[in-house]
Amino acid sequence: MPNQVIYIMGVSGSGKTSIGQLLAAKTGYAFYDADQFHPQSNINKMKAGLPLTDEDRWPWLVNINNFATEKIISTSIIIGCSALKQVYRDLLSKEIEQHCKWIFLKGNYETILGRMEKRADHYMPTSLLQSQFDILEVPTNAIEADIKLLPVQIVEYIISKLNVMQEFGIIGLGVMGKSLSRNLAGKGFSLSLYNRYVPVTEVKIAENFIATHTELSKAKGFEDLAQFVSSLQTPRKILIMLPAGNAVDDTIALLLPHLSVNDILIDAGNSYYKDTEKRTKQLKDAGILFLGIGVSGGEEGALKGPSIMAGGSKEGYDKVKNYLESIAAKDSNQNSCCANMGDNAAGHFVKMVHNGLEYAEMQLLAEVVSILRSTGSYNPGEIALLLKEQFATNLNSYLLEITIEILQKKEGEKWLIDLILDKAGNKGTGSWATIAACELGVPVPTLTAALFARYQSEFLTERKQAAAIYSIQQQSSSIDINTLFNAYGIARIVNHHQGFHLVEAASETNQWNIDLPELARIWTNGCIIRSQLMATLSNSLKNNKRILFQPEMVKEVATHSSALKNIVVFATENHIAAPCFTSAAHYLFSYTQEQSGANIIQAQRDYFGAHTYQRKDDASGKKYHTNWITE
Amino acid sequence: MPNQVIYIMGVSGSGKTSIGQLLAAKTGYAFYDADQFHPQSNINKMKAGLPLTDEDRWPWLVNINNFATEKIISTSIIIGCSALKQVYRDLLSKEIEQHCKWIFLKGNYETILGRMEKRADHYMPTSLLQSQFDILEVPTNAIEADIKLLPVQIVEYIISKLNVMQEFGIIGLGVMGKSLSRNLAGKGFSLSLYNRYVPVTEVKIAENFIATHTELSKAKGFEDLAQFVSSLQTPRKILIMLPAGNAVDDTIALLLPHLSVNDILIDAGNSYYKDTEKRTKQLKDAGILFLGIGVSGGEEGALKGPSIMAGGSKEGYDKVKNYLESIAAKDSNQNSCCANMGDNAAGHFVKMVHNGLEYAEMQLLAEVVSILRSTGSYNPGEIALLLKEQFATNLNSYLLEITIEILQKKEGEKWLIDLILDKAGNKGTGSWATIAACELGVPVPTLTAALFARYQSEFLTERKQAAAIYSIQQQSSSIDINTLFNAYGIARIVNHHQGFHLVEAASETNQWNIDLPELARIWTNGCIIRSQLMATLSNSLKNNKRILFQPEMVKEVATHSSALKNIVVFATENHIAAPCFTSAAHYLFSYTQEQSGANIIQAQRDYFGAHTYQRKDDASGKKYHTNWITE
Repeated sequence: MPNQVIYIMGVSGSGKTSIGQLLAAKTGYAFYDADQFHPQSNINKMKAGLPLTDEDRWPWLVNINNFATEKIISTSIIIGCSALKQVYRDLLSKEIEQHCKWIFLKGNYETILGRMEKRADHYMPTSLLQSQFDILEVPTNAIEADIKLLPVQIVEYIISKLNVMQEFGIIGLGVMGKSLSRNLAGKGFSLSLYNRYVPVTEVKIAENFIATHTELSKAKGFEDLAQFVSSLQTPRKILIMLPAGNAVDDTIALLLPHLSVNDILIDAGNSYYKDTEKRTKQLKDAGILFLGIGVSGGEEGALKGPSIMAGGSKEGYDKVKNYLESIAAKDSNQNSCCANMGDNAAGHFVKMVHNGLEYAEMQLLAEVVSILRSTGSYNPGEIALLLKEQFATNLNSYLLEITIEILQKKEGEKWLIDLILDKAGNKGTGSWATIAACELGVPVPTLTAALFARYQSEFLTERKQAAAIYSIQQQSSSIDINTLFNAYGIARIVNHHQGFHLVEAASETNQWNIDLPELARIWTNGCIIRSQLMATLSNSLKNNKRILFQPEMVKEVATHSSALKNIVVFATENHIAAPCFTSAAHYLFSYTQEQSGANIIQAQRDYFGAHTYQRKDDASGKKYHTNWITE
Repeated sequence: MPNQVIYIMGVSGSGKTSIGQLLAAKTGYAFYDADQFHPQSNINKMKAGLPLTDEDRWPWLVNINNFATEKIISTSIIIGCSALKQVYRDLLSKEIEQHCKWIFLKGNYETILGRMEKRADHYMPTSLLQSQFDILEVPTNAIEADIKLLPVQIVEYIISKLNVMQEFGIIGLGVMGKSLSRNLAGKGFSLSLYNRYVPVTEVKIAENFIATHTELSKAKGFEDLAQFVSSLQTPRKILIMLPAGNAVDDTIALLLPHLSVNDILIDAGNSYYKDTEKRTKQLKDAGILFLGIGVSGGEEGALKGPSIMAGGSKEGYDKVKNYLESIAAKDSNQNSCCANMGDNAAGHFVKMVHNGLEYAEMQLLAEVVSILRSTGSYNPGEIALLLKEQFATNLNSYLLEITIEILQKKEGEKWLIDLILDKAGNKGTGSWATIAACELGVPVPTLTAALFARYQSEFLTERKQAAAIYSIQQQSSSIDINTLFNAYGIARIVNHHQGFHLVEAASETNQWNIDLPELARIWTNGCIIRSQLMATLSNSLKNNKRILFQPEMVKEVATHSSALKNIVVFATENHIAAPCFTSAAHYLFSYTQEQSGANIIQAQRDYFGAHTYQRKDDASGKKYHTNWITE
């Protein structure tokens, strides 16, 4: 959208200056009073109570037109000017017609006379008012504002008619930022889009993006942060979608001087929750309402409906929830897969756990494929068909679906999956969940096994050398498909148990009061780990926070735990690396055993470090120490 | 040791003031010139060139004696005073004889005359010098210092004779601090020991500790940090042994104002390596040579010979290595199990990995015991006997030895181990190694399995509930003992492989240049993870940094990997939680497989996040993206 000259016109006393100044405050555009462009001769004449002739007015109007013409090269401006005759307005807009907006402050003689009699600081005598009404030619192309309304109402009306102020701002137009922008615009919101300017590589990103998507016709693009901020209605609503880390802090630092108290800032990137904690404090001190939200669903989800895990102040969330909830995916009851999980970093924490679960869900599928392929009986297409049979079961999930499509993909006669290098990348967020679990004292071996499997895959050269040295061959033997999928189901339950335990522990520690079934609900659609299991959990978590205690799950696990056992034995006997399956099985053994080996650990710790131990026959928790050395 | 008055005596011009001031700087005791205690009448007389009579001197000497008597209630002081006659000295030390030390600055007439002729600022005419020599009565109980030496040499000599300054200071007299103190004192070093004063709970800790151990007869105890610092020879050598965290920072903050450039500060606590990085920077800025050292061996090790993993500046280490190396354990070649691993936090990093390895070594033994007990064939004493048969093999280790003693311990008719609650504690350091591995991208599933096993054991109530719900019974079946121990051996190799990989990755990232065989060497004795395997590694690491690539290990693993496989199958089939064995087996499968399941992961990531992948048929590393959705 080009820069504009917003002329506020009307007879003297109609409120051009006060409305102009208020509009300036709301829009960030500068306000100018036309009177300041009068030649001295005109001012003298008015002071003497003499009416100006049109001959007097031409140089004045030319002055204003020149000024406006120069200004709009770089910015939009507001000019208060009576501009009573069309001929005056023609001169004011000469050669900049497309840039001019007319606001006509409309009021009758009595109303304005009443106001003028209260004013003493203006050099135009009230006796001239009638003459103004006499020459007024009501414009046909103006936005008419009734001056009987309150000034703030007038300005709101003008803004709505001008459509000059945007509702929602987005900073960062990478893949995710663009998708969210299109999603929001498609819901009818007017957006301001900002992308930094980097010579050659990032030039007119926002402008070009807007130009190529029809749903963005109302959006405005910026490369200047101050102009971007000025384009937004207050309190401003700004969403940042940038790579996690310094880019976010740098942008906040640049942004802060332009923001006002109660503006709402949303970090929708994949930020580390401890960074969000720091930023929440920093921005609270500055009076800004800060939200850290996790957005899951990848490029497509962001465009068509992601799962949105918000965190931050309730006040801030309430002011932006109509935007966030309208663009999120819908659950099976058509409720939005968007909710505020709790204060501060709660949103980014659960997003982190989401990604941890995602790692394990992906790895479990990779292990299913590895196990099936090890039998020598199935090619990728055939495995896809086996997976497809699980569509109708509670094993269905988004990741299952895409894995099927992946396995079916061919390149000429070859299966594409066989051409892909088995060296998995990671972006750090998977490790954050394990680190958080380590810090919170929650065992998450299955999430961690998936992380380490990725790390292990990166040492490709080393692995190939080791394979050559050891020649441990995977063995082929047949497998019962039902056993495999039953085991897969149990491993997934164990994985989710660990992930939700981690969320619950963090919620407890940080007093976030996270609603676990609500969390499962917003994960039932839009996000990468959406699944039939998650839909079940969104109900079953209402009655028990520990998944392995839920009757549905107990039944499932009790029925099929031997399947999990058998698959671990199968994988182990055939030298197939199945760290997620294995860790899930042994987690289950640990979790359901009455006696663990930890008494040995306690005795060892007491032996060499005098760390003491508790006794089974003393429920008081008293600490005992033994002098272990046999004399 | 009580406070002292150190009288520096000798004729005028012998250098009492300059030596006294230098001694004051070295000791931290205040210096006073006796002349300032003269009555005005004496000063007038000396200015007039008249010699003082003994009648003149008595009030002056009484003044000095009174001053000293009052001062030594709270501190030691130095007084420069000619004190030429024994009768003067008797008066000076009257009723404080036990507190007085006499330093006689000895020089002949010509030497001193030569010096006095160069001085103009003293009110005693040189003509009086001969009279001084005439009345000088050389003391019999003084430390004689030859004034022809350089002042610094004189002061060093005095300090060595006075034995007033201690060599080495220790802050923090907990279990480990006390043990290290006794160890150092037993090696002949003079120590200053500081423990904070806390009303009621920590009173005269150092003093009482010294009083109860004969080897500490030369040690001095303090509750005042300034006095503690003042008691040390410069550059000072101070070792802090406090709980990791804020206590260390607080103490450094209190200590810093009293330290001088080039003093050496050693943090011997179990500090987090990232804290050590911060402190190294902070103290480097203050000109202090800082070392972060890991000390392993528990209370007994600290007393009789720990393994010491130093880190920090070479300059700092060189100044304290005779202390550290003399108290450390000895390896089989009688070399000290103490070495500087590298700059900065290298010492604390390897100590952290030591503890991570320790967790897994302990857990593997706990799993061995769990597996043996599950058979129903062995009681703890019988298991101890089975373990004892491994003494002569390469499975021998300190942890094996203590586990045997633990299993043999009885309380009346009962095995003590059966009375110990199976709820294992942890002090955070075990989690640090996993966190570091997560951050560095190194897979350490076996270390992590041990950590999570401890975490899991803490949820005792939950576990008992789950056991009741699921009633998954461990099954009994017989086991081949040799298979179990062979598997145990392989699992330990895999564990060490992961730990040394982690050290190597950190060394690479931080440019610490850690000498891995040297690290294994200092771990062969004194520390908790000392073992026959470690002794082997101290050699084999010289040829290959990756343990699983070392010919000795390849042979061992190739011979016995099926044993590991069989034990994992046994544990799994019988529902015995064996997370460390299991993770070791599947790590080995992952590490030695040519094809992993990571191609599935890469395809999934590219599908939902456009993260791209590499191809097996393109060695350039080019990134590919596929539009996966089948049209």
